[in-house]
Amino acid sequence: MSTKTITVVRDLLATNKEAAAAIRCELRRRGILGVNLLSSPGSGKTTLLEALADRFRGRFRMAVIEGDIETERDAERIRRKGIPAWQITTGGACHLEARMIGKVIGEVPADIDFLFIENVGNLVCPASYDLGEDLRFVLLSAPEGDDKPAKYPQAFLSADGLILTKADLVPYVPFDPARAAAEALAIKPGLQVFTVSALRGEGLDRLAEFLAEALDRQRSRRA
Amino acid sequence: MSTKTITVVRDLLATNKEAAAAIRCELRRRGILGVNLLSSPGSGKTTLLEALADRFRGRFRMAVIEGDIETERDAERIRRKGIPAWQITTGGACHLEARMIGKVIGEVPADIDFLFIENVGNLVCPASYDLGEDLRFVLLSAPEGDDKPAKYPQAFLSADGLILTKADLVPYVPFDPARAAAEALAIKPGLQVFTVSALRGEGLDRLAEFLAEALDRQRSRRA
Repeated sequence: MSTKTITVVRDLLATNKEAAAAIRCELRRRGILGVNLLSSPGSGKTTLLEALADRFRGRFRMAVIEGDIETERDAERIRRKGIPAWQITTGGACHLEARMIGKVIGEVPADIDFLFIENVGNLVCPASYDLGEDLRFVLLSAPEGDDKPAKYPQAFLSADGLILTKADLVPYVPFDPARAAAEALAIKPGLQVFTVSALRGEGLDRLAEFLAEALDRQRSRRA
Repeated sequence: MSTKTITVVRDLLATNKEAAAAIRCELRRRGILGVNLLSSPGSGKTTLLEALADRFRGRFRMAVIEGDIETERDAERIRRKGIPAWQITTGGACHLEARMIGKVIGEVPADIDFLFIENVGNLVCPASYDLGEDLRFVLLSAPEGDDKPAKYPQAFLSADGLILTKADLVPYVPFDPARAAAEALAIKPGLQVFTVSALRGEGLDRLAEFLAEALDRQRSRRA
């Protein structure tokens, strides 16, 4: 990569960081916990959000910003759960950037607890872009294989939590959840690991509790 | 994106195109068919190459260039099949570029039939980079979901063939192969569609035949 290219990328990331800081500040002011979900395409981000919508109903209010290259499909799925959702279509770009979130954030209702951001399905590029979230999760689905953390380290290094998804498929694929977790923990010690099957509603209690506690912590810091 | 950024990206792509043209020329001169495999992480690119190595044994000679952000794992898997393999680790970059292939191509034995290039696992960025291949396949695994072509159109638009992988998992996941194929064909009419289970060795005959015919065509054009 030429020096010129590196400078441009650095400028983009610096501009992104400023926009992200403004979003983080605004979310904290409103007492909303921002959560950024990263993964490969088809790891189950939307299905997890649908399951959390069911789990949170009557207890917490959530909203979702969906990132995709094309189509409004994921936002439509979330809206069918009665959850406010905005679709950002990047039109080719491989990741969400903070300025894209900044354009939507004003429309997010003030009385919600969680703002989930589902990034473009890509285990590489989104890891470099802070979106002003308070928590970042990387999802890894069983059929992707337990060898992925070491091959795509940045996503795991930048995350606060790892969600091993599609646990219902473990009997049918070569995937050892313990190996996946160990490999991720070698990259990022202290990473919180959750194993879920969103389709079967399994493993969601611990994740929901973790999110509730993070929200409490954020609000008590503000108080 | 600023004008400056767009210019830099265009320069990069133009430089890549030149390097790709040189590789294509060199491969054709040697009578080698170059095949670029694109997909999300964990869609089964390496497993497909292992299965093709078994299928081709005694009939065709192949070599593999592996692209990953980190680790030599995939090249090691291919070498265990007795196939020459080179690992390119991009150290963070989300795709292979032609100049990376250019650095390795001199080491590829002259007497092989197929040079497979397994790109970095990413359904977005690799689609923009010509690596000098003659054929490009995009892989989509059943657990990723049949809604992916419209959400990641560039990869499907740029491909010559679509390989629906992990067909053995279809009974366990919400995936309609016909819907996935129809959606991909709406983006790229004429796309060749193959359905395989590399683990079970199913669906490989048609794919192997397609590759053999493409090799014949390339060599007869050269003669």
